[in-house]
Amino acid sequence: MTDYDPSNIFAKIIKGEIPSVKLYEDDDALAFMDVMPQAPGHLLVIPKQGSRNLLDADPAVLAKLMPVVQKLAVAARQAFDADGVYVGQFNEPAAGQTVFHLHFHVIPRHDGQPLKPHIGGMENIDVLKANAEKIKACL
Amino acid sequence: MTDYDPSNIFAKIIKGEIPSVKLYEDDDALAFMDVMPQAPGHLLVIPKQGSRNLLDADPAVLAKLMPVVQKLAVAARQAFDADGVYVGQFNEPAAGQTVFHLHFHVIPRHDGQPLKPHIGGMENIDVLKANAEKIKACL
Repeated sequence: MTDYDPSNIFAKIIKGEIPSVKLYEDDDALAFMDVMPQAPGHLLVIPKQGSRNLLDADPAVLAKLMPVVQKLAVAARQAFDADGVYVGQFNEPAAGQTVFHLHFHVIPRHDGQPLKPHIGGMENIDVLKANAEKIKACL
Repeated sequence: MTDYDPSNIFAKIIKGEIPSVKLYEDDDALAFMDVMPQAPGHLLVIPKQGSRNLLDADPAVLAKLMPVVQKLAVAARQAFDADGVYVGQFNEPAAGQTVFHLHFHVIPRHDGQPLKPHIGGMENIDVLKANAEKIKACL
């Protein structure tokens, strides 16, 4: 495992250097829409403090982050009237990690509807914004 | 979503009513081997306090649980010299949940080795115990 690289795309989102469709922000955490959603409402929750993934994170950061993951999971479920919610966190490429800043995937699930591959392409920005409004209304 | 049912299999493991291959225990959390591993070293981390899943969990329980998930993920990676670690948490059957007590899956991953399906069958108990010893040696 290599060190944290502060030039990763999520670090730039935190600094406001590149745009995102934001859902929630506090002193320690940020939630925004995944631009390559595996299902409508697919969102990401990240800590503002930099760590490559779970393996090198400050435990105190994790303790603050998980109630935020929960808050977004509950809202996403309600917003999409979902049958379930998948939460996934990938460490290193062998586990599916592609951006090297700790993040939790939160994906509303519906019975009988398989997930799309994460490389399924960029979603239309207006769709992402509309889905974000649905989730924010449930926060 | 229905309520928490205290007769679920993980509640019985917590109470010692049915056996498990334990890895770690403290006042609030328990970690043990998944008996249907998707890869060698597949383990589960659960809170002792009952909740059906993430959606109805006490945020204070989550805050204490995630540093334990991290501890086990780091140990499992080291124990199996893994290239990565997958962490997954499923809410309701639509998201893959089959036991209705909050749990986090922690699975060591190796490049080019796909996960087995979770219904791949019960692992030999001696294999589970040997893998548990490897992980405990890294805690």
